[in-house]
Amino acid sequence: MSKNEFERIETYFAPLTAGFDGALSLKDDGAVLAVEAGRELVVTTDTIVEGVHYIGDETPDLIARKLLRVSLSDLAAMGADPIAYTLNIALPRGTGDNWLEAFAGGLRADQDAFGIHLAGGDSVSTPGAAVLTATLFGSVPAGMAVRRSGASPGDVIFVSGTMGDSAFGLAAAQGALSADKSEMDALEARYRLPLPRVNLGACLREIATAAADVSDGLLADLGHITEASGCGAVIELEKIPLSLAVRRLVDQDAGRWGQVVTGGDDYEIVFTGRNESRVTEFSARLGLPITAIGRVTPGKGIEVRKSDGEPISFAAAGYKHA
Amino acid sequence: MSKNEFERIETYFAPLTAGFDGALSLKDDGAVLAVEAGRELVVTTDTIVEGVHYIGDETPDLIARKLLRVSLSDLAAMGADPIAYTLNIALPRGTGDNWLEAFAGGLRADQDAFGIHLAGGDSVSTPGAAVLTATLFGSVPAGMAVRRSGASPGDVIFVSGTMGDSAFGLAAAQGALSADKSEMDALEARYRLPLPRVNLGACLREIATAAADVSDGLLADLGHITEASGCGAVIELEKIPLSLAVRRLVDQDAGRWGQVVTGGDDYEIVFTGRNESRVTEFSARLGLPITAIGRVTPGKGIEVRKSDGEPISFAAAGYKHA
Repeated sequence: MSKNEFERIETYFAPLTAGFDGALSLKDDGAVLAVEAGRELVVTTDTIVEGVHYIGDETPDLIARKLLRVSLSDLAAMGADPIAYTLNIALPRGTGDNWLEAFAGGLRADQDAFGIHLAGGDSVSTPGAAVLTATLFGSVPAGMAVRRSGASPGDVIFVSGTMGDSAFGLAAAQGALSADKSEMDALEARYRLPLPRVNLGACLREIATAAADVSDGLLADLGHITEASGCGAVIELEKIPLSLAVRRLVDQDAGRWGQVVTGGDDYEIVFTGRNESRVTEFSARLGLPITAIGRVTPGKGIEVRKSDGEPISFAAAGYKHA
Repeated sequence: MSKNEFERIETYFAPLTAGFDGALSLKDDGAVLAVEAGRELVVTTDTIVEGVHYIGDETPDLIARKLLRVSLSDLAAMGADPIAYTLNIALPRGTGDNWLEAFAGGLRADQDAFGIHLAGGDSVSTPGAAVLTATLFGSVPAGMAVRRSGASPGDVIFVSGTMGDSAFGLAAAQGALSADKSEMDALEARYRLPLPRVNLGACLREIATAAADVSDGLLADLGHITEASGCGAVIELEKIPLSLAVRRLVDQDAGRWGQVVTGGDDYEIVFTGRNESRVTEFSARLGLPITAIGRVTPGKGIEVRKSDGEPISFAAAGYKHA
């Protein structure tokens, strides 16, 4: 016999509040969040649906971790230091306690990895597909949240890490890609468990004029920045940083560049800034590759150029999440 | 052709952020919440599912308003002044723009009624039942959040408004109650659109030792207080405040007292306190009936007594939300 909602909360979720007094042990009508004087709260929230945002064959702990990481990535893009989260889960009636236990284990692992705590939430049943919502709270010094709207012509465009791994990882997971087995496994792992650039967040407050995380695809998310900032951009295709596996894939078929610049779920950060040497300094300090890929321009839209100056166009500027 | 998620956000949700700069017009990865110096944030969140938490025949504007009101009631019980909310909606693919428009209209109406703003959220599709989550933010002076755990023996137990209207309103909506048509309509209205006691929230900080909102039923929610406070309670059945319609129903059949004390969704506040005359003063100032119904006792559990002292027991101590 599976546990009722009260028992589930007591068994699986209340322990995740340990060390965070503001959760009031999930025994009150709400949680209390203290925000240090001189700081503001940053709130970001994501909902994922079974069969839409995850394939359905993932283990519950990976689903939990990806749910948190997607929003941790948003916090990082805003320059915020993560604090806590609330969790709302609507699960099909038959969901077993073993699923809950594994799911809570995934939450626990990433709480420890990223220094966050469960602050509150809601747990309900649904006759339909599972729907999972995490709302993450972080903080920034007042007025220092990094926006999408701060870019201006002449700014350099940077991206963290490498682009496209997740798009090819999804293709690999779906059996739609044939390549070296160990490289496919590595790409699939990037898709299944993204690595949010949480440590970059605090640095962005010092070096970025604008930022967004790459969730919809590089062109789409850079497009959010240029649109919000009222300017355009030129990026150089060959400067886009690639992992060895993705490099090999685009060398085999240049048509795959489309997936690199429009594929989603990279959860890297694209940002604009003026001080390239400080960016280099932070990159070294964090041990995180950060690459200049282009410049903000007056005007509108994003132009992608090859090294010989030839402009390239891509069919779709990033997929739009359902 | 119905709008995509980006267009929906732009058309229906972005306008709901007007007047709240921290929403960043829904154009960033998150929202920014400033919390005044000396105050703390209170966060509460609820998820409702189509076919589980609402019957399915409600108009979208009523669904939206009830979603907000359920959490506004939680904020009030914590003594918090409401500020803003985030909204996560997972809707079946076929959901039309007219549904969205009416839903957004309900949000707008209650934003205006309760002085809150949309701060952010997520909008996704689901192959299953609609799942709607609202996360409400309020604030209290630091350290002043009203908890469930502060009651002690000798405290008087108070409730706002009247009890049981919503339970009989649900029965009326389901055709399971036959009574005077206008009275049934009034009860049903209480069920469909609860009135959270938002103004009582700030007063509770001054008069309550502990509080909870009556969402699971009077006995269940008072039970949350006594359990968290490590004490018991005695309440006097005849002192429980009833509307005229519910009074008539229990006069016809005393068995219906069970629904009064165990039925949920009243969204009144049950609280404990020591200074009855200050409670009376606030009651008059707010124009809100507040009634003393019993006392906190040493020991454990809740005893319900008739005026002649005879104890009564009820089958189920409040229903538990699915």
